[in-house]
Amino acid sequence: MKYVVGVDLGGTKFAVGAMDAEGTHEFAFQSQLTRAELSADHIVERIAKLVETVIAQTCAETGATRADFLGIGIGAPGPLRRADGVVVVAPNLGWHDYPLAEQLSAATRLNVILDNDANCATLGEWWIGAARGANNVVGLTIGTGIGGGLIFGGRLYHGSSDVAGEIGHTTIETAGRRCKCGNYGCLEAYASGPAIAERAREALEADGESLLHTITGGDLAAITAQHVYEAAQRGDDVAKEVVRDTARYLGAGVANMLNLFNPDVVVLAGSVTNAGELLLAPLRAEVKKRAFRPAVDAARIVPGDLGARAGVVGAVAMFLAEQRAGA
Amino acid sequence: MKYVVGVDLGGTKFAVGAMDAEGTHEFAFQSQLTRAELSADHIVERIAKLVETVIAQTCAETGATRADFLGIGIGAPGPLRRADGVVVVAPNLGWHDYPLAEQLSAATRLNVILDNDANCATLGEWWIGAARGANNVVGLTIGTGIGGGLIFGGRLYHGSSDVAGEIGHTTIETAGRRCKCGNYGCLEAYASGPAIAERAREALEADGESLLHTITGGDLAAITAQHVYEAAQRGDDVAKEVVRDTARYLGAGVANMLNLFNPDVVVLAGSVTNAGELLLAPLRAEVKKRAFRPAVDAARIVPGDLGARAGVVGAVAMFLAEQRAGA
Repeated sequence: MKYVVGVDLGGTKFAVGAMDAEGTHEFAFQSQLTRAELSADHIVERIAKLVETVIAQTCAETGATRADFLGIGIGAPGPLRRADGVVVVAPNLGWHDYPLAEQLSAATRLNVILDNDANCATLGEWWIGAARGANNVVGLTIGTGIGGGLIFGGRLYHGSSDVAGEIGHTTIETAGRRCKCGNYGCLEAYASGPAIAERAREALEADGESLLHTITGGDLAAITAQHVYEAAQRGDDVAKEVVRDTARYLGAGVANMLNLFNPDVVVLAGSVTNAGELLLAPLRAEVKKRAFRPAVDAARIVPGDLGARAGVVGAVAMFLAEQRAGA
Repeated sequence: MKYVVGVDLGGTKFAVGAMDAEGTHEFAFQSQLTRAELSADHIVERIAKLVETVIAQTCAETGATRADFLGIGIGAPGPLRRADGVVVVAPNLGWHDYPLAEQLSAATRLNVILDNDANCATLGEWWIGAARGANNVVGLTIGTGIGGGLIFGGRLYHGSSDVAGEIGHTTIETAGRRCKCGNYGCLEAYASGPAIAERAREALEADGESLLHTITGGDLAAITAQHVYEAAQRGDDVAKEVVRDTARYLGAGVANMLNLFNPDVVVLAGSVTNAGELLLAPLRAEVKKRAFRPAVDAARIVPGDLGARAGVVGAVAMFLAEQRAGA
């Protein structure tokens, strides 16, 4: 049996795990804080160390040896260049043109293949998760930002310069809220975790009475999307309206994906899944209202199965797919 | 040499032509008014008659015989089912679940393959037009409506139930103008020919002085997008603002395509190309402002080369691609 290490590198945390090449078992899932203030080389060193820990642990569990490891798949924030494994810009990490694959390969003496983190998460859900067996898949990872991944005919679609799938940065209001990307009216500017919190703060300024005051101990700057879900679940009107609006924005975004890609499955992952049906039910209703009937009928809209492991699992799947394509 | 007939069926006109299977020559391009008030069977009869005229003319020009014709590719408004050649709904034709391929095949005794009209137009531009040689292409056909086609890796992408590519029906304003599809804020509700005319009428109500009064002989109900372009070209302020807004809306739509699909080429066809650089220059500027740099750098945004022939040429290309895929 052969094994592959998967790495999911984010601005806050990185996670490492291993899987057998059949995708039947996950081993030794580990994660650490990224500490983006450290140098890129230093972060890679720490990833490499965790990779060795994961390999050792997997070998102990399975009886495999280090020679049974084919290599490392790593998902990182984009834009990036897959061909030479370079992260072009990663604002959350402060990286510019950093040769991530090369450096991690040098540190581990293993073959390293790089792809976008949201692409990997989507591929993970397709491989062994909520979109298993589907032909065409749209994946959204909704957290600090909104990432996206596209699978057509069972393969990741990357576009002409590896930028494809930036669903979070599609305009849903041409003169809308300013987004971190510099554009106005991006889906991310309305429905990411921080955007949900910001809309809640604005709503509180207009309508003072809300459980959110109690939940946050009066510190409105500390509101998170999680607080909003909690208050909504407890029946708070302000929070319920914020969730309703979130479902409306995400619903418009997902409806756009249906009319464009006509997928079998839309997988929603990241913090949004924590809200569960509270968000998913009105989101599905909004999609049904907006998208073409044959597209609505064709698509299941589901939360991811793999939770925080999707990126690691998908990085393994991506490594294997690239190796097969290259062979 | 083998030949294929291409048919482009629209709500206003249908066009028929023939090409050799190498795509080097076009023959006997003909078009007629559709007369949508007639029964579907009657329209098919008239298409079949024009197909025979085109075949006869092509044979006369080339020395071919009817036996050298492989079949007919036909592009029609969607939604449709390619597998059995059925037009599911075509509001402009008043058709529901009409077996177009079967009927046209019965009338011509030729093999008929059906696809979406905007898909065909996009494939035509990829085959021998403005997107020739590109790998990933987004096509927009902007006229009475806004149709779209997607080519990934040199092949049309259809999605899971043949609905993919409905770029005109993606939301760019969540609480925006009502669209004919029932949704609010679709790109088509802002940037189709009739939408441009409607925005011009609204602008005239707010600001009375404009060449548009003279151009239309005072009949504002008669304003078309063409009138708006003409007035803008002659320096009319109201018309110039309508064109500027159109470029902004289309720019947002095209930027969305860049961030999602990261294509090599975006082909703009239909009446929009009549406005030329007047519209294209500000459109490109808007895209540059909105989309990610690596996506902007990768993509040429160009008018189509084939004009009204794109649909017919693409229907031929589609027929040949499907035949190859089936073989």
